[in-house]
Amino acid sequence: MNVNVAMIGSGFMGKAHSNAWQRAHIYFNTEAKPVMKVLCDNNTAAAVPFAKLWGWQRVESDYKKTVKSADIDLVDICTPNNLHAEVAIAAAEAGKAILCEKPLAMNLKQALAMVKAVKKAKVFNAVSFNYRRVPAVALARQLIQEGRLGRIFHVRAAYLQDWIIDPNFPLVWRLNKSVSGSGAHGDLNAHIIDMARFLVGEMTEVVGDAKVFIKERPLPQAAVGLSGKASAGKKGKVTVDDAVTFLARFANGAIGTFEATRFAQGHKNGNRIEVNGDKGSLYFHFEDMNELQFFDNTDPKHLQGWRTILATEGVHPYISAWWPAGHIIGYENTFVNQAADVLMELAQKKKHMPDFEDAAKTQAVLDAVLDSAKKHAWVDVPKV
Amino acid sequence: MNVNVAMIGSGFMGKAHSNAWQRAHIYFNTEAKPVMKVLCDNNTAAAVPFAKLWGWQRVESDYKKTVKSADIDLVDICTPNNLHAEVAIAAAEAGKAILCEKPLAMNLKQALAMVKAVKKAKVFNAVSFNYRRVPAVALARQLIQEGRLGRIFHVRAAYLQDWIIDPNFPLVWRLNKSVSGSGAHGDLNAHIIDMARFLVGEMTEVVGDAKVFIKERPLPQAAVGLSGKASAGKKGKVTVDDAVTFLARFANGAIGTFEATRFAQGHKNGNRIEVNGDKGSLYFHFEDMNELQFFDNTDPKHLQGWRTILATEGVHPYISAWWPAGHIIGYENTFVNQAADVLMELAQKKKHMPDFEDAAKTQAVLDAVLDSAKKHAWVDVPKV
Amino acid sequence: MNVNVAMIGSGFMGKAHSNAWQRAHIYFNTEAKPVMKVLCDNNTAAAVPFAKLWGWQRVESDYKKTVKSADIDLVDICTPNNLHAEVAIAAAEAGKAILCEKPLAMNLKQALAMVKAVKKAKVFNAVSFNYRRVPAVALARQLIQEGRLGRIFHVRAAYLQDWIIDPNFPLVWRLNKSVSGSGAHGDLNAHIIDMARFLVGEMTEVVGDAKVFIKERPLPQAAVGLSGKASAGKKGKVTVDDAVTFLARFANGAIGTFEATRFAQGHKNGNRIEVNGDKGSLYFHFEDMNELQFFDNTDPKHLQGWRTILATEGVHPYISAWWPAGHIIGYENTFVNQAADVLMELAQKKKHMPDFEDAAKTQAVLDAVLDSAKKHAWVDVPKV
Amino acid sequence: MNVNVAMIGSGFMGKAHSNAWQRAHIYFNTEAKPVMKVLCDNNTAAAVPFAKLWGWQRVESDYKKTVKSADIDLVDICTPNNLHAEVAIAAAEAGKAILCEKPLAMNLKQALAMVKAVKKAKVFNAVSFNYRRVPAVALARQLIQEGRLGRIFHVRAAYLQDWIIDPNFPLVWRLNKSVSGSGAHGDLNAHIIDMARFLVGEMTEVVGDAKVFIKERPLPQAAVGLSGKASAGKKGKVTVDDAVTFLARFANGAIGTFEATRFAQGHKNGNRIEVNGDKGSLYFHFEDMNELQFFDNTDPKHLQGWRTILATEGVHPYISAWWPAGHIIGYENTFVNQAADVLMELAQKKKHMPDFEDAAKTQAVLDAVLDSAKKHAWVDVPKV
Repeated sequence: MNVNVAMIGSGFMGKAHSNAWQRAHIYFNTEAKPVMKVLCDNNTAAAVPFAKLWGWQRVESDYKKTVKSADIDLVDICTPNNLHAEVAIAAAEAGKAILCEKPLAMNLKQALAMVKAVKKAKVFNAVSFNYRRVPAVALARQLIQEGRLGRIFHVRAAYLQDWIIDPNFPLVWRLNKSVSGSGAHGDLNAHIIDMARFLVGEMTEVVGDAKVFIKERPLPQAAVGLSGKASAGKKGKVTVDDAVTFLARFANGAIGTFEATRFAQGHKNGNRIEVNGDKGSLYFHFEDMNELQFFDNTDPKHLQGWRTILATEGVHPYISAWWPAGHIIGYENTFVNQAADVLMELAQKKKHMPDFEDAAKTQAVLDAVLDSAKKHAWVDVPKV
Repeated sequence: MNVNVAMIGSGFMGKAHSNAWQRAHIYFNTEAKPVMKVLCDNNTAAAVPFAKLWGWQRVESDYKKTVKSADIDLVDICTPNNLHAEVAIAAAEAGKAILCEKPLAMNLKQALAMVKAVKKAKVFNAVSFNYRRVPAVALARQLIQEGRLGRIFHVRAAYLQDWIIDPNFPLVWRLNKSVSGSGAHGDLNAHIIDMARFLVGEMTEVVGDAKVFIKERPLPQAAVGLSGKASAGKKGKVTVDDAVTFLARFANGAIGTFEATRFAQGHKNGNRIEVNGDKGSLYFHFEDMNELQFFDNTDPKHLQGWRTILATEGVHPYISAWWPAGHIIGYENTFVNQAADVLMELAQKKKHMPDFEDAAKTQAVLDAVLDSAKKHAWVDVPKV
Repeated sequence: MNVNVAMIGSGFMGKAHSNAWQRAHIYFNTEAKPVMKVLCDNNTAAAVPFAKLWGWQRVESDYKKTVKSADIDLVDICTPNNLHAEVAIAAAEAGKAILCEKPLAMNLKQALAMVKAVKKAKVFNAVSFNYRRVPAVALARQLIQEGRLGRIFHVRAAYLQDWIIDPNFPLVWRLNKSVSGSGAHGDLNAHIIDMARFLVGEMTEVVGDAKVFIKERPLPQAAVGLSGKASAGKKGKVTVDDAVTFLARFANGAIGTFEATRFAQGHKNGNRIEVNGDKGSLYFHFEDMNELQFFDNTDPKHLQGWRTILATEGVHPYISAWWPAGHIIGYENTFVNQAADVLMELAQKKKHMPDFEDAAKTQAVLDAVLDSAKKHAWVDVPKV
Repeated sequence: MNVNVAMIGSGFMGKAHSNAWQRAHIYFNTEAKPVMKVLCDNNTAAAVPFAKLWGWQRVESDYKKTVKSADIDLVDICTPNNLHAEVAIAAAEAGKAILCEKPLAMNLKQALAMVKAVKKAKVFNAVSFNYRRVPAVALARQLIQEGRLGRIFHVRAAYLQDWIIDPNFPLVWRLNKSVSGSGAHGDLNAHIIDMARFLVGEMTEVVGDAKVFIKERPLPQAAVGLSGKASAGKKGKVTVDDAVTFLARFANGAIGTFEATRFAQGHKNGNRIEVNGDKGSLYFHFEDMNELQFFDNTDPKHLQGWRTILATEGVHPYISAWWPAGHIIGYENTFVNQAADVLMELAQKKKHMPDFEDAAKTQAVLDAVLDSAKKHAWVDVPKV
């Protein structure tokens, strides 16, 4: 069984997804085999060499045409955030399976429209919260489902980066609200909200604070790009948050603290989450992504301690496809794991989690936090 | 020069302070020598053997008499929180120097009355925020004052413990609002608020959430005691928080997250604080109290990394009094460092920091957070 | 420019090398493009599906024929150790470029014959000591060459695994001397000897101890395989070491300790090396392969500490081809880095390091250690 | 019951022991109470203020007189190594209980004479290997005795310091063979040999390498002292090792690597030992002295990992005398624990371990290693 893929967008995520489509069926020997049919990007000058390098069979520039192509089974959306909704809805209307990068949408309203579209079209729909596919994170979920944490009291999550502290770092698309929707919030809090929901469940109420530390930045030479160089002289206004912190209450009675920032000097991709229950605790930190920290209160008292589970054993999620124990995997492997899941789900007609509906719940939290920051007050998380 | 000390209270802190009065002048060879004159505790049955063990010359049971004794120079207040104000004010009125355990008071109103009393009496006054006397924390302050962090963006502080997760843990004084004022908040947040203020400066606004996870507990066999055993059958209502989280804004533009809890499974005395600036970052965790983590953005790019400064060198604060490099010190040494500072300050007629006024600012934050939790809204921190 | 590759052997290393040939030109955009022409393995039943999965164009079973094929430019030797020499010499005689898995040979005599063959044939020759291609290890070398360690005193290396502690683990080829040459020694000490030589230089004298903890094991059901299942009943003699420790003296006056074992419970791929000089120290541990620990004695005294360099910045070796800072890479990426180096060297007619001659020096140390263990005495390392 | 103590020597160890005699009975509420009767040191100028500071009742300068004093029960030997034997033998002949600093003697011959003397005199005898009294180390022993490691394969021990790397560091007594006996070897290897014996048992054969990196150093201004300042101009020959490495075989079939050095840049008091068995592994590092790392192979496979036991719980050795969980202890507390053991043993007429005979076995290993280094060959460890 072949799955013909059209990928929309060829930036950072385009690279990660291209690699994934090339590796997933090899490592996981999936029944469904991806065929890299179309790379669609309106920047043709960049797309052509990218497609050649990564083996996309043809290049297109109009996503509306691409999503309707008869030879396409799955649309993989790797565009900036402002295009997710329109591309996804068009793809749904064309009856295609969809994998969409996170955050699902610019806001909850868009997200709900996307959910409606995929429900109506009854198409496979998946959102690329790749950190769920880190073996250690999947193991964390497994331990919680095995009851090893018991009643949960606390979530403590932060996603810390430091790449825009320099005031001369240019105003790239991720700092432009009309393209990105928000700053660190949609980029980073989206991930830790998704992980918290994956591990602990839904949040009901939040209070947040959004901060812009550097209010103006040089305009980039190129209009779009993660690392576009600054142009001389001209400055533009930063329209998104540099950092967003928030407190949360969970439906199950737990409470949480969350923080996303691009201003935490010394933290490169510091995506971390801790969960404390009455029977045990868990801690994950992406920069040590092969490890899960676990404290087990049911151990004999004199032996209790935080243990570092090196999640590289065959018994751990995803690992049997990879290498012997101790031979750690890296960032791009999480996308391979995700692609393998998508391929297996397509072959077996299963749902992907998070699907659009699940990701809309993350979007609801994201929206509520920004609303709270604006109102300077606690806000209920809208029910999805 | 002798300093005659009367210590009020003989619990956990009484042990730590007694040890400190016995060690400080030896390790630091201070000019002022403490004389352990009086142990005052209304529980004479406990106080007599305690005084014998630790070398207090006489035992008294009425603090009002003790603080007026002609042979007393300094009153060291180690009682439960509800007695801090009245003892301190009486001591001030008697013209005595005062060292008071933290939190300074049950609330800001009390704290301000205490400040007024010591100002009026012009007596030496000090609050036992012992974590400022951890060499690594004093070093953190030094690095910030040397300008090594630059403009500060973030504070991330948590004080995590797990000793009352068991629902059968009894209702000891620390869980009784009329004695303790609050729960994890005054006990633990007090410390990290003080450290944040010590390192970064004042907070202006906060929003907090207070949580009680276990609402009723067995009454203890003994009325007072950190680890009193549960009595059979009878339960009482828990009147203090089990955990308090809050967001803060600082006067200098930084933002912070704070959390105090006694329900973080696997954390024993997890007092930790991180500060991120544009030039560098710092991280301290009490369970590794001899270490300060430091990231220096001015290092050559390919050499940058979080460095673990083992703060046990002669050049580090307090260490020249102790042991050779790498021979780490422990919890009780922080009280010895504090006592040595007090003795040196008394001899040299210097102020202690934090004094009552400084600690009242911490109390103002504590109060504002509880007020915020009650109102479920952001609250301004009262100016002190 | 195309490089037509024939890979001999399709086991664990065959998988790692196949992945590398598929990724190197994409991530590094190398001028030379590998073409995966031939997979040669005498176990055709395994080779055919392997070749299909990984995209080898044809399967052959006779390496003698393969190495002479007119359409082959490079022979990639991934066989068990006992075949390295004969395949490499045949490939050299056929004028092919060669990449050979480590250890280079069964013993120094074989290694020297291989060196002679490639010198005579003047063919490109490379040995797959992939750990040199870990960015953190390449950075370690760079720091030493920048003079940041100064005069070197100590090397402390260990390669710890635990996968054959179970006495019922079968007698796979790696435990059979006639196939593997040695046990943990050639498999693991080979790597840390190579790293020590890469970082510090040549050893002149060694004294070693070789140990077999489990002397008999069940015969495997399949004759060859890392994880072949044990057959019922029959046992065979373990003919290789389970662990080898040794002391070494270096030509530059440094001294070292080395240890390789498959009996260190809890260690999965614990390849670690530390180097201490008068100006600084370095430490690398593969299970945290993205990190290099560095202590710099030239830092201001109060700031000195071991720093964890997360070697994922664009300024670090190999990383600009991969992901943004903090997005860590994994085990298989080291082989991709290596393949990229090979491709660039072939295009630019440069030497690969380690070449056969360099790897023969590692073989000389390996031989000297086993000789020392046998003689129970210090032994000079033969000069190569 | 009082125990009248005479301490001989007032250097670094004199400080640690004085503190211990002042704290042990308080924290442990021992039946036997130490009385600090005599400080004996031939350097009276230093001894008088030391005695005053630490509360020794009188100062003497002639140990021969002191050990015979009728009012002395226990002689605590804190002199440089060259005096251990003569003081201990004199004390034994005088019928006194003895606590002697490590290493027991300058060599095995001396050690055996000391054993003979205490056996003849039937006096209490103890050697101050204080690291056995680190709670985490005592816990390590307990876990091994509980069978949690099973059959032991490996010991990996190192004691790393860096305080004499500077060639201008002066020739203090510890670098003078006639006073110290050896360098890093007797000072540091003594500790890790003792710990290895404590945890794993006796060694039968060793091969070692001793190295002097800096062969001449400035003479110190003061004749004796750990940190005596260098005098201008004059240099003397270093007569002890800077570093000693060795391999060992244990009676139970395990093998080990050992290393002691004062030239490991970045290591301050890096006393570390790891033990690997078929059921589990343990690791201790003094700079994190409150922690014991433990890997338990009997855990469910997907939960296995190295756990950090924070050995500060009431159930851990010695801790119930100290502070609540997580309130870590420091270097000097190990001497307090030791003194408490000595006091309890004296009251209960029990043996101390290690006693002189046990410490002579450590001396036998020390001697064998130096002998091996000299002969450049494996050497049997003499049976004691």
